[in-house]
Amino acid sequence: MTKLLVFGHQSPDTDTITSAIVYSHLKQSIGEEAEAVRLGEINQETQYALDYFEVEAPRLLEDMKADHQDVVLVDHNEFQQSAVNIKELTIHGVIDHHRVSNFETEGPLYMRIEPVGCTATVLYTIYKEHQVEIPQHIAGLMLSAIISDTLLLKSPTCTERDIEVANQLAKIADVDINTYGFEMLKKGASIDGMSAADIVGNDAKSFELNGHTVRIAQINTVDPVEILALKDDLLQNIDERIERDNYDLYMLVITNILDNDSIVLTKGLTDKVDAAFDVKVEDSEALLKDVVSRKKQIVPPLTNAFNA
Amino acid sequence: MTKLLVFGHQSPDTDTITSAIVYSHLKQSIGEEAEAVRLGEINQETQYALDYFEVEAPRLLEDMKADHQDVVLVDHNEFQQSAVNIKELTIHGVIDHHRVSNFETEGPLYMRIEPVGCTATVLYTIYKEHQVEIPQHIAGLMLSAIISDTLLLKSPTCTERDIEVANQLAKIADVDINTYGFEMLKKGASIDGMSAADIVGNDAKSFELNGHTVRIAQINTVDPVEILALKDDLLQNIDERIERDNYDLYMLVITNILDNDSIVLTKGLTDKVDAAFDVKVEDSEALLKDVVSRKKQIVPPLTNAFNA
Ligand SMILES: [Mn+2]
Ligand SMILES: [Mn+2]
Repeated sequence: MTKLLVFGHQSPDTDTITSAIVYSHLKQSIGEEAEAVRLGEINQETQYALDYFEVEAPRLLEDMKADHQDVVLVDHNEFQQSAVNIKELTIHGVIDHHRVSNFETEGPLYMRIEPVGCTATVLYTIYKEHQVEIPQHIAGLMLSAIISDTLLLKSPTCTERDIEVANQLAKIADVDINTYGFEMLKKGASIDGMSAADIVGNDAKSFELNGHTVRIAQINTVDPVEILALKDDLLQNIDERIERDNYDLYMLVITNILDNDSIVLTKGLTDKVDAAFDVKVEDSEALLKDVVSRKKQIVPPLTNAFNA
Repeated sequence: MTKLLVFGHQSPDTDTITSAIVYSHLKQSIGEEAEAVRLGEINQETQYALDYFEVEAPRLLEDMKADHQDVVLVDHNEFQQSAVNIKELTIHGVIDHHRVSNFETEGPLYMRIEPVGCTATVLYTIYKEHQVEIPQHIAGLMLSAIISDTLLLKSPTCTERDIEVANQLAKIADVDINTYGFEMLKKGASIDGMSAADIVGNDAKSFELNGHTVRIAQINTVDPVEILALKDDLLQNIDERIERDNYDLYMLVITNILDNDSIVLTKGLTDKVDAAFDVKVEDSEALLKDVVSRKKQIVPPLTNAFNA
């Protein structure tokens, strides 16, 4: 086996970037060759975490193509979220916390998926199993991932285990979870310097639901009014993406991390949004009360609506 | 969540039956409700192990349909090898050592797959993580599974970890691996009381290879001549199964566990067998030198042949 290439999903978030770095560190610690890489641009929240703990961003893969044969996927498993040449590669491992779909291998592999809020929580357990010590900067990155994925331990995806691990990691990283976490999330929630296209494509993932391609982007904010001021430009960009990439439904989920509601801007088969969330999309917009988690609160009801 | 139903694949082997029992024991030990069940008849090898360690066989599911919503799969993940109503169930966990294919879930789950020779080896690690003590009868069943899946630690699927775990388990079970293992394998290799249909359907699994349905049965023996004496009846039964179930290729792999070769009786697209193993099937028969592992030595080259 050549060096292992470790990467997370396209449109990388903090869990994806840090998990690639962290798992590579673990592999190196037990004497295996591994390199963290990424499939897209670092967002502002992730950059804040990398800067705070003085860690370099992983290398960007050209055209989202893995340039080694032997790979490990972190924080995702669905092929449409992965390297574009994923079907030609040998997947040796998957560390994840999502449902399994559109994933297969030709041979046996190491697959570690747990129903927790964040990949970092699974990685923490693997460090313990291998009795590898977690250095301060690695603990800081893992904590950042948990804060990001669970919106400061408040999302419905957050489990007891995430909270327990976050507290352990905060001690090693020597930061206060709330103080550090709020600063990091606020940084990620800023739309300073973002174009309408950047916002519409933020943390976007594709899902195959009963033969339809659904694209769901999500952006966190502390001020939804600031984003909705751009509504006309955002909707025009959504139309362009639907036209270009043949999506059947596009949803831009604007999540208010202070009050834990989301506003969705959506085009395409929006009657599925009506049915899934018992709302009425008007003027391409709807409020989803108490909805913050794409994985737990958006994809499952939408899947049901498409299967109905 | 209601009680968890734990089961392995159709045409159960020793690893599938014992892993269902063992994982249910582990779940119960940590205070969760779980019941081991099975999707088919107990073979003679497995019965020997159950009798030796005085454990009851799991309950047989009617029509291979799970009768609870919440399930855990052991020793398999591919839906065509599972309960016939698997797509309607909620899969909470998978403990396995096979490639992943034709598997998906609607929500997050606990998935633990390792590239080792046997599910029992993965289960041993999970016992250690939960610091649950392994009782003698459970250790005996786990050891039986490793002996069965690795043909007494000699199959190419057998890893260092399997050997290490088998030695630990033999101590707890208080048996000599070779003495006990040879008796168990010999019991499984006996065709006493088996009809041609029993032999042709022994440990049979279906694989979807590039749009073709391939059925591969395997039987271990210490005396291939005894089985080949039934060749005409076996081939007729293979024809009947192809006719009835529309297989594109049927392979009955007769594995000599003393010299570690296999003879295959095959009907259907047998040119794929020629191509995969660089042999010439003549009179529906070919010798596969040094081939004993379906997973590692039969399915991968056959997959390549179908994709070529
Ligand atoms: Mn994540
Ligand atoms: Mn097995």
